[in-house]
Amino acid sequence: MAVFRRVAIIGVGLIGASLALALRKYGLADELRGSGRREANLRAALQRGIIDSYSLTHSEAVEGADLVVLAAPVGSFRRIIEGIRSSLERGVIVTDVGSVKGALVRELEGLMPEGVSFVGGHPIAGSDRSGIGSASADLFAGARCILTPTEKTPEDALRKVRELWEAVGAEVSILSPEEHDLVFALVSHVPHLIAYALVNTVADLNPEYIHYAGKGFRDTTRVALSSPELWRDICITNRGNIFHILERFQENLAAMVEALKEGSPEELEDLFEKAQGLRARLA
Amino acid sequence: MAVFRRVAIIGVGLIGASLALALRKYGLADELRGSGRREANLRAALQRGIIDSYSLTHSEAVEGADLVVLAAPVGSFRRIIEGIRSSLERGVIVTDVGSVKGALVRELEGLMPEGVSFVGGHPIAGSDRSGIGSASADLFAGARCILTPTEKTPEDALRKVRELWEAVGAEVSILSPEEHDLVFALVSHVPHLIAYALVNTVADLNPEYIHYAGKGFRDTTRVALSSPELWRDICITNRGNIFHILERFQENLAAMVEALKEGSPEELEDLFEKAQGLRARLA
Repeated sequence: MAVFRRVAIIGVGLIGASLALALRKYGLADELRGSGRREANLRAALQRGIIDSYSLTHSEAVEGADLVVLAAPVGSFRRIIEGIRSSLERGVIVTDVGSVKGALVRELEGLMPEGVSFVGGHPIAGSDRSGIGSASADLFAGARCILTPTEKTPEDALRKVRELWEAVGAEVSILSPEEHDLVFALVSHVPHLIAYALVNTVADLNPEYIHYAGKGFRDTTRVALSSPELWRDICITNRGNIFHILERFQENLAAMVEALKEGSPEELEDLFEKAQGLRARLA
Repeated sequence: MAVFRRVAIIGVGLIGASLALALRKYGLADELRGSGRREANLRAALQRGIIDSYSLTHSEAVEGADLVVLAAPVGSFRRIIEGIRSSLERGVIVTDVGSVKGALVRELEGLMPEGVSFVGGHPIAGSDRSGIGSASADLFAGARCILTPTEKTPEDALRKVRELWEAVGAEVSILSPEEHDLVFALVSHVPHLIAYALVNTVADLNPEYIHYAGKGFRDTTRVALSSPELWRDICITNRGNIFHILERFQENLAAMVEALKEGSPEELEDLFEKAQGLRARLA
């Protein structure tokens, strides 16, 4: 197992801070450096021992690093890489924890200087929490982490990033950047949009009605507690797949509305049973 | 606090059995009788001491009862009342635990014989579980229970049913049958439809993709584990309100799609923040 000399965590939020804590816990990094926009947050991360030092300038943070982890909102990745690329030395591995891959991975890969590898990564952890206050070295234990290598990804860099995630307890899966984005539009991005839209429907009718919500509504809309900034970037970046999945969702909803309009209990029950059966595979 | 002499529970599932257990725990009923379609289930309820006796015939179960609780799927209520009405004595209170009120309450009320009171009730408990295996005397502790009296509901019957729910730990709210159905289309029925439709969207694309689901998808679709038979009846009975709420939901979703199409991050973030703010009131 490779141990990194100096790891730069760009964006010290829930995921970035949890990864820093995990790298330290498992002895995978000699030195941890953070960078980000809000100094108060970086200072708090330093005081809690999450990072060893910080910089408000990303290019300063990556100096001398052999691993750079992008853990800021995905909408900022391109700008960050443009700002740090001249500070990246040969042999450095750049990876990320963003929820969108696809064209973004191809683009970032193209921005890497000669001899610098990019490996796209997406740990499935976090849900509605955010910030270093919820960070934990055990966040990735038992979680899945998707890596999205392309034909340009060096095998050695992929292996090192894979070993890192496995060392912090994650189960690694490999998907192409494109399949990743289709799958996560389906199981994550569209569900977030739907949850936000459902809560806004309550706001439209009468915000006080929220107090009649039971456990079902709480569960269904829990992800609407997620960071608007983070999810704004994710949805905009993956909008093509989101539109595609939303169309399929609308078809499924329309089939139920049709059964309701016809007052056809058997058809409606069949549709519900189909869903219940598949969902039970997650139980 | 009134204690009932003999309580007939029509439909011994999660809610019916939990109410029976709670009535016994708090000494609110001298005798508990169950009825239903499946003898094996009734026999199991008898063996576990949930009920004292059972009948496969509802009219037999209600003989000599001073309280009758409808706890079967709402689609069967009308037929059940038609079958038992000639066995109901003056002074009997009939109540229910169904998730739909509105026109159904008015209809059932109209079917009551002279001197028999109907009080619509809806305890907000249950979620995705079902069956007597999940039943608990404490299911209603801290839960909300909506009662939906009309201008015809005798005050004394309403008071007795209210005291019963309060005695088993529920917090009682009063809504008109019509407002109840609008509110629950919003916070419960449409969220169920959406969850079922979302899981069926995964089934359409590739059922194996369900294994990439994280905590967010699990939460969002948990209610898709709910009983298809129960929810078929609820949705068909309240379809008018469901169509209305679905339209408002579609408007909210369309506003997000519009912001995505225009690539307008500020607008999208505002919509997400609006939802996050309201949802946080449930936290």
